[in-house]
Amino acid sequence: MNSVTCNLSISLDGFAAGPNQGPDDPLGVGGMRLHDWAQSGEPGVDAEIAKQITEGVGAHIMGRKMFGGGDGPWDESWRGWWGEDPPYHAPVFVLTQHPREPLEMQGGTTFTFVTDGIESALEQARAAAGDREVAIAGGASTVQQYLAAGALDEIYLHIAPVLLGDGERLFENVGAPAFEPIEVVSSPAATHIRYRILS
Amino acid sequence: MNSVTCNLSISLDGFAAGPNQGPDDPLGVGGMRLHDWAQSGEPGVDAEIAKQITEGVGAHIMGRKMFGGGDGPWDESWRGWWGEDPPYHAPVFVLTQHPREPLEMQGGTTFTFVTDGIESALEQARAAAGDREVAIAGGASTVQQYLAAGALDEIYLHIAPVLLGDGERLFENVGAPAFEPIEVVSSPAATHIRYRILS
Repeated sequence: MNSVTCNLSISLDGFAAGPNQGPDDPLGVGGMRLHDWAQSGEPGVDAEIAKQITEGVGAHIMGRKMFGGGDGPWDESWRGWWGEDPPYHAPVFVLTQHPREPLEMQGGTTFTFVTDGIESALEQARAAAGDREVAIAGGASTVQQYLAAGALDEIYLHIAPVLLGDGERLFENVGAPAFEPIEVVSSPAATHIRYRILS
Repeated sequence: MNSVTCNLSISLDGFAAGPNQGPDDPLGVGGMRLHDWAQSGEPGVDAEIAKQITEGVGAHIMGRKMFGGGDGPWDESWRGWWGEDPPYHAPVFVLTQHPREPLEMQGGTTFTFVTDGIESALEQARAAAGDREVAIAGGASTVQQYLAAGALDEIYLHIAPVLLGDGERLFENVGAPAFEPIEVVSSPAATHIRYRILS
């Protein structure tokens, strides 16, 4: 069966997003700093890793907050944060309470809106991914749900050397899974640790 | 001037000790698991790092909780957790509200009890350390105080691949120092990241 993976940038104090997240600011105050490592544009370890993130992925799952457009019924003019050619280039399943027709974007990205829960989304993503990975794209609360359900096989953490002091923590309400670090790569901008999840 | 360093084991969810710490259990529930990497006894990366921790250190500073013996006036029969030949082999300055005569142990460890605050302890430790490092031994709240005071030059984090879920967090109430990862070494038991503290 497909492996289910997750890439997530966190601060040294464990936050996946800063405080005061809102519909227009899903990363919260300072949260953009968690992603500096991926955006320097300089060749090197970080750029390589940023490039690999979507390689091998056959389908993505994300939460409504990550997709954006508020948390009520859909304003159909909202088509995500990423413009007409989003960087996923694969089917993306968006967890939401509110039904909406699929959105076909350029470059192979289709957003499908799933209203019947995380298991249904995973089932649909597995079917769409073929023999490739299913990636839980975020945000933190979506990752937490899959981690708590025992559905994650691997998590690739990118630890940025910053403190946010407040915000949305990654490792809360996830039960007691066991982790094994299987790959560590580092740069001045982040420490990248790939964990296998054992239970 | 001596550099001021710190070695600390933390969980993947950021705890330096588990919940329900008490006078007889300074590590809290599950907290011992944070130190498994140092205690396997197997040769390898972890054993090397565990051995290096006290090398180069001319004096240590620790909080009262780490030294033990409750939090009231001293019961003089309490001589620390480590037996008659503690692993420090150097002067150790213990932060406390309660005066006590210095305790000379075997193997070069002397515990000196400091009642006039963290700056005084650092000054005394610097004088005792000569040109060697001063190490902040812990626990988390002592490290936090020195970090908040801008007195730490380096922190060597040992990230154990476990979740504690609750307990004493390392990075709280420390202001907004900037970190730069300068060395990363990993094993299945822990990821060891040495950070230089820039501000």
